[in-house]
Amino acid sequence: MAKTKGRVTLPSEAGFIEETKEMLARWGADALRDSDGTKLDPEIKKLDARIYTTYFAARGHNEFAEQHMEECQQLYLMSRRCTAADTEVRISFLEGYYREQVVPDYVHDPKEWWEVMDRTAGQPLSADDWELDQENDQVRIRRAEPFHEYTVSFLVYAIWDPTQMYNHITNNWGDRPHEIPFDVRQPASGRFAKDCLVQWLKDNPDTDVVRFTTFFYHFTLVFNQEAKEKFVDWFGYGGTVSVKALREFEAEYGYRLRPEDLVDNGYYNTPFRVPTKAYLDYMDFIQRFVAKKAAELVALVHEAGREAMMFLGDNWIGTEPYGSYFADIGLDAVVGSVGGGATLRLISDIPGVKYTEGRFLPYFFPDTFYEGNDPCIEARENWLSARRALMRKPLDRIGYGGYLSLAYRFPEFTDYIEKLTDEFREIYDRIHGRKPYCGLKAAVLNCWGKLRSWQAYMVAHALWYRQTYSYFGMLEALSGMNVDVCFLSFDEVLQSGIPADVDVIINAGDAGTAYSGGSRWEDVRLVSLLRSWVFQGGGLVGIGEPSAVHQNGRFFQLADVFGVEKELGFTLSTDKYFTEAPERHYLTEDRTEAFDFGESMKNIYALGADTEIAEYSDGGIHLAAHPYGKGKGVYIAGLPHSSANTRLLQRALYYAAGKEEKLYRWFADNPECEVHAYPEAGLWAVLNNSGSGQSTTVYDGDGKTKEVFLEAGAIRWESAVR
Amino acid sequence: MAKTKGRVTLPSEAGFIEETKEMLARWGADALRDSDGTKLDPEIKKLDARIYTTYFAARGHNEFAEQHMEECQQLYLMSRRCTAADTEVRISFLEGYYREQVVPDYVHDPKEWWEVMDRTAGQPLSADDWELDQENDQVRIRRAEPFHEYTVSFLVYAIWDPTQMYNHITNNWGDRPHEIPFDVRQPASGRFAKDCLVQWLKDNPDTDVVRFTTFFYHFTLVFNQEAKEKFVDWFGYGGTVSVKALREFEAEYGYRLRPEDLVDNGYYNTPFRVPTKAYLDYMDFIQRFVAKKAAELVALVHEAGREAMMFLGDNWIGTEPYGSYFADIGLDAVVGSVGGGATLRLISDIPGVKYTEGRFLPYFFPDTFYEGNDPCIEARENWLSARRALMRKPLDRIGYGGYLSLAYRFPEFTDYIEKLTDEFREIYDRIHGRKPYCGLKAAVLNCWGKLRSWQAYMVAHALWYRQTYSYFGMLEALSGMNVDVCFLSFDEVLQSGIPADVDVIINAGDAGTAYSGGSRWEDVRLVSLLRSWVFQGGGLVGIGEPSAVHQNGRFFQLADVFGVEKELGFTLSTDKYFTEAPERHYLTEDRTEAFDFGESMKNIYALGADTEIAEYSDGGIHLAAHPYGKGKGVYIAGLPHSSANTRLLQRALYYAAGKEEKLYRWFADNPECEVHAYPEAGLWAVLNNSGSGQSTTVYDGDGKTKEVFLEAGAIRWESAVR
Repeated sequence: MAKTKGRVTLPSEAGFIEETKEMLARWGADALRDSDGTKLDPEIKKLDARIYTTYFAARGHNEFAEQHMEECQQLYLMSRRCTAADTEVRISFLEGYYREQVVPDYVHDPKEWWEVMDRTAGQPLSADDWELDQENDQVRIRRAEPFHEYTVSFLVYAIWDPTQMYNHITNNWGDRPHEIPFDVRQPASGRFAKDCLVQWLKDNPDTDVVRFTTFFYHFTLVFNQEAKEKFVDWFGYGGTVSVKALREFEAEYGYRLRPEDLVDNGYYNTPFRVPTKAYLDYMDFIQRFVAKKAAELVALVHEAGREAMMFLGDNWIGTEPYGSYFADIGLDAVVGSVGGGATLRLISDIPGVKYTEGRFLPYFFPDTFYEGNDPCIEARENWLSARRALMRKPLDRIGYGGYLSLAYRFPEFTDYIEKLTDEFREIYDRIHGRKPYCGLKAAVLNCWGKLRSWQAYMVAHALWYRQTYSYFGMLEALSGMNVDVCFLSFDEVLQSGIPADVDVIINAGDAGTAYSGGSRWEDVRLVSLLRSWVFQGGGLVGIGEPSAVHQNGRFFQLADVFGVEKELGFTLSTDKYFTEAPERHYLTEDRTEAFDFGESMKNIYALGADTEIAEYSDGGIHLAAHPYGKGKGVYIAGLPHSSANTRLLQRALYYAAGKEEKLYRWFADNPECEVHAYPEAGLWAVLNNSGSGQSTTVYDGDGKTKEVFLEAGAIRWESAVR
Repeated sequence: MAKTKGRVTLPSEAGFIEETKEMLARWGADALRDSDGTKLDPEIKKLDARIYTTYFAARGHNEFAEQHMEECQQLYLMSRRCTAADTEVRISFLEGYYREQVVPDYVHDPKEWWEVMDRTAGQPLSADDWELDQENDQVRIRRAEPFHEYTVSFLVYAIWDPTQMYNHITNNWGDRPHEIPFDVRQPASGRFAKDCLVQWLKDNPDTDVVRFTTFFYHFTLVFNQEAKEKFVDWFGYGGTVSVKALREFEAEYGYRLRPEDLVDNGYYNTPFRVPTKAYLDYMDFIQRFVAKKAAELVALVHEAGREAMMFLGDNWIGTEPYGSYFADIGLDAVVGSVGGGATLRLISDIPGVKYTEGRFLPYFFPDTFYEGNDPCIEARENWLSARRALMRKPLDRIGYGGYLSLAYRFPEFTDYIEKLTDEFREIYDRIHGRKPYCGLKAAVLNCWGKLRSWQAYMVAHALWYRQTYSYFGMLEALSGMNVDVCFLSFDEVLQSGIPADVDVIINAGDAGTAYSGGSRWEDVRLVSLLRSWVFQGGGLVGIGEPSAVHQNGRFFQLADVFGVEKELGFTLSTDKYFTEAPERHYLTEDRTEAFDFGESMKNIYALGADTEIAEYSDGGIHLAAHPYGKGKGVYIAGLPHSSANTRLLQRALYYAAGKEEKLYRWFADNPECEVHAYPEAGLWAVLNNSGSGQSTTVYDGDGKTKEVFLEAGAIRWESAVR
């Protein structure tokens, strides 16, 4: 591979000039960044590289914040549930929270802004029915219903930024000040944020790119009484609340939000909840504010002749890169962390910016870079899982974070990244701006649709959860598959129908969640719309508990399309005769390993003889297909990420779409390999996504085959006859 | 053991007189019975034994039935769901049914008695919106909503008794007539049933006991187009329906039942469904009729100087042995099939009869009695699993069924039964009428309560179902445990509170079912009643998904009592810190084998540090306890039947009741053994419930211990100092 340069960002640090120069050259980097805990010194800033500097828009200025504690950010919190053993209850509402993170808001009248709920009855109490004991941080209920549970939804000021707090505690920063987050919606803070940036731009003339980390509101991250994480929602709007915001919302929308609209039974509207209209309104309200305010800061950056880049994380709430207002911010770039294919696409698909950048793993921290450990392993896994997604929609830049001095001590690692960065540039140069071949178009259908493109099933960013990996594998599979992918919401299809170019719709998730759809499936318009669409030739792939809500004698509302239903105990009296899987089925043709449906589903049964059972074990179906008019339904019990499952999903999509034979175009029969083609460029590539050598038959665009062997992780470019 | 005589019923058959005499003597039998397919000849009837003769009250008289086809029994059936691909649908409503079993009722106006349902909308169509095409057995809908599903709920006449039909088809009875079930609610049939019995009693002077098999209405048993079982509900009232019944219901109750009240989305009100008020009313209506009508027949039997015995099965619907009207029938006896401990108690606990009889396994049929098979194995398993229940509440008689000539060919079997019958009589003589020691009282709480004592979780009688064995094991465990057992319904506890003598309540089942309680848990009165009761010292044991209905931020409505909750995906953002099980816990103290929670539950987590986690694996809790006021909750993920799980439940009950130390009274520490004590008789027994020799420490009523060894299946009687 030819030595190339550019599109790579390197972390550096003070006192590391010579090594930085060397790495700039070897990795072909053209930008340098600071990181949490590192600063670039003037000498480094003079190197031939663009300089990124981290900027915090709403914290790190305690001299200001301490003078405006009434402008601290706020949260609604729910107390623990307290049982009334008789007619009087006292609720110490702060119990379980960390008093260095939050303090009650006694500035605004609790009788107006707080809410005491009878959680057993699901009803709020009248403000007359409770009293606040401010001295003891208690709420007293006098006429409680015995053996009902009560909670207090109360407003707090957040007096410590949760990310700084986490770093502070983890790294034992001792008496270093707690950074106080201020709310730019408030008058002084709003002015200060701008003034401060203007001054900062003057003070940092070497900075080429202002790396906003991020704007104004941190995702919801609340700690418990032991200062350990209590609640984390990477999508949570919890930290955007304030009395001012609630008043402005009421003025704009004509109705007032109740604390319960945000507290939501203690679920706090996680994205797994089917969103209420009030919460959707609130999100929209916040997004418009954030976009407007962020645009003001970005304009200042541009006026100073610099670029504005947003880090996708930390204080990113309200920016919603796939939302309606994101482009209005006017950002030049977005940078985010790449954990694999789906998180890469989450960044690279973002519209409305000039370029995207992915921070790859491992982070140069001592947890990976210690003697005896081989950081190449994580780097290779990260690269191979992300590279296939890059082949579909490349990032414009890649980079790393942490202590360069640490990585520098691992020569095999620096060698590997040298090759990797060249490989990245080669890919980019060949395919950037060229549409890859897509055999079909798949749409992921859930409550969130486009707004949360590539973001489904996430709780804390990119962490593994037992309840989600069996669905997240579907996104990971799609991220590098030779299909077009879009995200649709129920509202969108109800309003505008299913886009004409969609071949297959995927609905995947646990019953009741926003990803499966929960109560949305009570809407008969939705049910009949999808039936009609499949009947006319569409393909529907369901994973887990698709279209699930129990009503009218069905749990899967589209059981008739899938040909399978889940036994809830009400049809045990009905004999189930269809339990045989044929030896061969299109869906499983090249499966050589055991099935892995992850958490899987139990008690799935076939409705009739026309259900094609592709897998049956332990008294249940885990993989099936079913003709429905001119279309088809496919059911999969769960899809954790693996090469074999990626292939299974691919087959499910092509089968559901009635494009069975089209699968064998630009195709590698070995599931560890994939083919990506760029017909307009007359170019295609075979990738070995695995860490070992692989032989495969590859199919070109006409279905002509040849055998190839690829070394571990290899990519092989070919020219196509056009 | 001394040779004794009595309390045993022997099947016999024509031409088997000498062997019958021998077996009467060896097994100490004092009654002889015919069976399906066998008849007793006059010589046998002269032996020194009471004669039972099977009597069918509502079938087996085709000469009558054929002249009164309008008095055939009826059923409401639901057609398959048909999708409207456009605005017109034709539904061939008989599709999937067996036309030799059912014919449409075109006698009564379908527009009045049938119902066409839009199953997608969950709404009935107006009678104007559909037409019947009688010639083609079709319903046509003209103004259908495209892509809604429609069904027809239609009345049929049942022209073939399903049990005779099953035997007919299974045994290839060729052109033997199909027995037509007639409905004694109809005028001619009602008279005929009585006249016929009067004549029959005259014709059968040797019969001492009329064994009704059974009365009037068969449990719901419907066959498909291939004459294979399509729907079976041992509790189903499906076959009790008629236009006359519906009219009488309306007159009595002041409202009219809709077909949907009986069709119930195609679930047909299986006992797993939370019963509606309409269905409960209907059951009550049928029970009153059945009791009144059966009492007339029983009176005729008594007038003829005979005894009346009811077989608990086949046409038993409406008798409800634990219902309010059963005693009014005036039966002398009930006989039923014993599959294990719970089915034994289902018979032996029946109130309002003079005696109960259990038919033990194996049935003397060629499927068990064939060369090379050892029928002792099934006999021993059956006896050992049932015997422990017998020790709590004995049957008054036992017996066998089938072909004696077949069993006679297996001398080891006849030897074994000889010992078994002597053992039965010894047990009976020692404990009959004596209250066994009970360490506490447990109540099983569900929608059905007392009415369905020992009948929960059954579909077809005593068959294994994947969805139920993890709960049925609880009943099986209780059936022979040294605790008092009762069954409570939600209605009963709401009306009358929890009986003062109950120590522990068990709520067990899958979410949404009548056994867990489903929507009944939406009732805050129920929730707070149970909380209050536990808080004051009660014990609550939950198995599977107890108190489960998703509302107000909880799935387990009594999560606060159990200390555990099920993750539905809405609280993934909340950190779960409590995952450690201590090495020892009271619940698991003598557990030596691996845990077996059967189908088990996933995603169960602890709410706080005070939850005592007794088992945690695969990211979830499967066994836990939790203090609540003076009481306790215990959670078990599932309880399939085994000795170890019986012990686990026993420990759960004693722990929940706060009677931990009382466990060690009349106790055997080896879970394969149990102690039953009869303090008022100064008697106790140690049982080895297993098929191998067992050593155990036994504890007497003062907690004094001794070591004993028992041979396989042994029972050892001891005298207690009073």
